[in-house]
Amino acid sequence: MTRVVCRQLAPRVTELAANQRQIVRTIAESTAAGADILILPELATSGYVFESRAELESCAVRATDPLLTDWATAIAGTGVVIAGFAELGEDGLYYNSAAVLDSTGILAVYRKAHLWDREKLFFTAGSQPPPVVETGFGRIGVLICYDLEFPEYTRVLALAGADLIAVPTNWPLAARPDTERPPEVLIAQATARVNRVFIACCDRAGTERGQRWTEGSSIVDENGWLIASAGADQVVQADVDLGRARNKTLAPHSNVFTDRRPELYAPILRTP
Amino acid sequence: MTRVVCRQLAPRVTELAANQRQIVRTIAESTAAGADILILPELATSGYVFESRAELESCAVRATDPLLTDWATAIAGTGVVIAGFAELGEDGLYYNSAAVLDSTGILAVYRKAHLWDREKLFFTAGSQPPPVVETGFGRIGVLICYDLEFPEYTRVLALAGADLIAVPTNWPLAARPDTERPPEVLIAQATARVNRVFIACCDRAGTERGQRWTEGSSIVDENGWLIASAGADQVVQADVDLGRARNKTLAPHSNVFTDRRPELYAPILRTP
Repeated sequence: MTRVVCRQLAPRVTELAANQRQIVRTIAESTAAGADILILPELATSGYVFESRAELESCAVRATDPLLTDWATAIAGTGVVIAGFAELGEDGLYYNSAAVLDSTGILAVYRKAHLWDREKLFFTAGSQPPPVVETGFGRIGVLICYDLEFPEYTRVLALAGADLIAVPTNWPLAARPDTERPPEVLIAQATARVNRVFIACCDRAGTERGQRWTEGSSIVDENGWLIASAGADQVVQADVDLGRARNKTLAPHSNVFTDRRPELYAPILRTP
Repeated sequence: MTRVVCRQLAPRVTELAANQRQIVRTIAESTAAGADILILPELATSGYVFESRAELESCAVRATDPLLTDWATAIAGTGVVIAGFAELGEDGLYYNSAAVLDSTGILAVYRKAHLWDREKLFFTAGSQPPPVVETGFGRIGVLICYDLEFPEYTRVLALAGADLIAVPTNWPLAARPDTERPPEVLIAQATARVNRVFIACCDRAGTERGQRWTEGSSIVDENGWLIASAGADQVVQADVDLGRARNKTLAPHSNVFTDRRPELYAPILRTP
């Protein structure tokens, strides 16, 4: 069994040093306590609600920054960490990124491809497909927040072989009927089920410049069932058999991948 | 407002004449009582659990059969009906189909493209994209049951302009945790939300040759919220403003269609 842990931190906007201390402490604690795969929120280094480009510039870092090396160093044992950060690219542009690391260093960096709302004022959207990282625990795919709401994109990641999709998020609190879960959780559940993959979303906590967050971190199994979700303590974890995601069979004659009819899907590629 | 009604009938396997009487009576009653869009189950003419090809052959009909003309004749006023039937094609093959009708006759026939499990032993999968039918109430897209579990396919239908996706279904009852809705309902909710379309699924009732059904007929709004679901009386209805599905805006800088990144979705078209 693999222990998947989401730590629903509350970064403070622009306070890079304080956020870095929180991240390093959380990585050290969680992996020492047995987290095999640890997921932290989107933009855990920087916070989210920027008021100016200068604020983002003041706390964005290159992927080669020693700050990320310190994350790797903090990892106990064989743990794998996925965490979001504000990235200054080698091209001088700013990206909403996530790094995948183990104790040896960075395994992959992903740049969010679907930017939400005002993020477009500050960040450049990524142009590369999401990574699928082979680890000792299985194949980990990475998306960031709003990416998850594009089912053609999550399908691509599942087809690329992800067993678990790790999703650092910052979910702004949205109104919903009392009878409903957060909409992002519904989407994660459906996405998990139709692809038979595990999905772990690590949301953030706290209120930032008046923005409330859903605090909805969730782990969903390959059937789409919600097996862990955020309570008061901001830690969400589940022990899962990620190998179950390799079985795409639904019934003797049905399989979520081979039942697809790609010849009917061509309009997906049309530009709006 | 448009009144959408699902009538969760219990067809009897192979009993074409009895099923036809039930369908005609239901169409007449529901449209006279104010249903603007009436949806009936998948394979409402034939039942589902065939034991042999001969059984299917005994109760499949051509789309030009007077039986379907009688459906149109039964429609009161401006009602639109979507209902599933076992179709004998002009090519001699058998299809799991749905017809869209108003009082003037058949507006479209759709053949299920994603066949579930043992359906493959009896039916040929359709090879045409799902229709989007312009009606006085809005644009109605049609899928059948398992089609809904392919998010690239539902996206295509949403991109083609559907305001409401009407889904005749036969949902075999699946085990689920007490805390969860039927998985098909979760999928309908997420699909509605990520595309900002309404979805109405008409399941069937009863037990057929030992097969229990979910009896999970559901109407979901463009936010993904479940606004009506089957109770004891097998009638599910909601009054909806389908025009809301024309607005794909989520936030000042976000839109579910224009935020797509088609250049990243090409692997969707690969054959398994």
